[in-house]
Amino acid sequence: MQKKAVILVSGGLDSATLLAIAKQLGFDCHALSFDYGQRHRAELTAAHAVCNQLGVVHHQTIHIGLNSIGGSALTDFSINVPTTAETGIPVTYVPARNTVFLALALGWAEVLKAFAIFIGVNAVDYSGYPDCRPEYIQAFQTMADLATKSAVEGQSVTIHTPLINLSKAEIIQQGTKLGVDYGLTVSCYAATDDGKACGICDSCRFRKQGFIAAGISDPTRYQKLPNS
Amino acid sequence: MQKKAVILVSGGLDSATLLAIAKQLGFDCHALSFDYGQRHRAELTAAHAVCNQLGVVHHQTIHIGLNSIGGSALTDFSINVPTTAETGIPVTYVPARNTVFLALALGWAEVLKAFAIFIGVNAVDYSGYPDCRPEYIQAFQTMADLATKSAVEGQSVTIHTPLINLSKAEIIQQGTKLGVDYGLTVSCYAATDDGKACGICDSCRFRKQGFIAAGISDPTRYQKLPNS
Repeated sequence: MQKKAVILVSGGLDSATLLAIAKQLGFDCHALSFDYGQRHRAELTAAHAVCNQLGVVHHQTIHIGLNSIGGSALTDFSINVPTTAETGIPVTYVPARNTVFLALALGWAEVLKAFAIFIGVNAVDYSGYPDCRPEYIQAFQTMADLATKSAVEGQSVTIHTPLINLSKAEIIQQGTKLGVDYGLTVSCYAATDDGKACGICDSCRFRKQGFIAAGISDPTRYQKLPNS
Repeated sequence: MQKKAVILVSGGLDSATLLAIAKQLGFDCHALSFDYGQRHRAELTAAHAVCNQLGVVHHQTIHIGLNSIGGSALTDFSINVPTTAETGIPVTYVPARNTVFLALALGWAEVLKAFAIFIGVNAVDYSGYPDCRPEYIQAFQTMADLATKSAVEGQSVTIHTPLINLSKAEIIQQGTKLGVDYGLTVSCYAATDDGKACGICDSCRFRKQGFIAAGISDPTRYQKLPNS
């Protein structure tokens, strides 16, 4: 019997690599995306394109009204996406986002009888979000082991984070080997509806540097020529 | 400065009592309900009525597409609500529901700068749901302490479960003292749109027994005279 996994696919560079890794490991991939009122809607279109390119059993998008609670530049359109590096945790931080995403993945995994969840968190070239750290993931795992009917009945879900200790360049190198088409992915927090990147937000800066460090040509479609 | 709390208000008996307790403790109450595609829609109307009766600063309903993942008699209308007690965890169990609800409460609490979340889980007269147990709540608390920007900056949210060790009768007695109008609440898994209870599902049975054991007259509006 094929082993099943729920893969959190945002449409960005990391989660496209994640999906390719899960497939390489032999999982039957059920992709999960979230429409949470994010300003960068193009990532949902990108998620669909990535799933099509790499191949999944099913791609499900769950709607969550996160914009009704606001508190982030990504969901509250009165807060601008910054164009320079900030100190501390940036305003693009979405309160408890990975906890909400993992909770929904846990629910879907239980329904599917999947015992693996893949999430593309990264604690190296990242923005300092608290819910991307290994100690957070470990604590979520401990909680998940107590949360579900499946777990109580002896079948826990394991949370896999294969990117957590990789640099952006290493992620890009690994994905390229696995055939990921990064031209389909959208990482930019302020992408246009057709997926063109601003080139200057936090997420664009990490991505651009990653391609340079990896020595791989950057297929990102920018809104204008980047200043680098 | 008034202390703020997020209170999970479903519209049922337990969460109405919970809200009354949080108010009694002096919290500024921000009520949170979820429209997750549950078949018993009348509970959302009841949540609104309960918040009005007891008084809250704000009542927010977040939409979540849980019915797109199914897996429960409460969200998948092809599964019937049972009318007799089941052995083990019943089909009304919604996969990872409290994890999803607490995750969203955690996000809203962070936006509000509230450092308390109240959830009406109960481990005595309950249906055996794994995510109502004290060890689950403790594990969620540990995870929450690592999950948010506020927590990393030294301001954790505390999850309060004042009902966890009370019997249904004790909950009813405490709420009655605090002025809860249980006639406004809806606990039934198969309530009619105008909030009339079936009297025979798991949730109705616990509720009915609770009023009898508490020696308090049951104000529940039943669809027909109960068989008791």
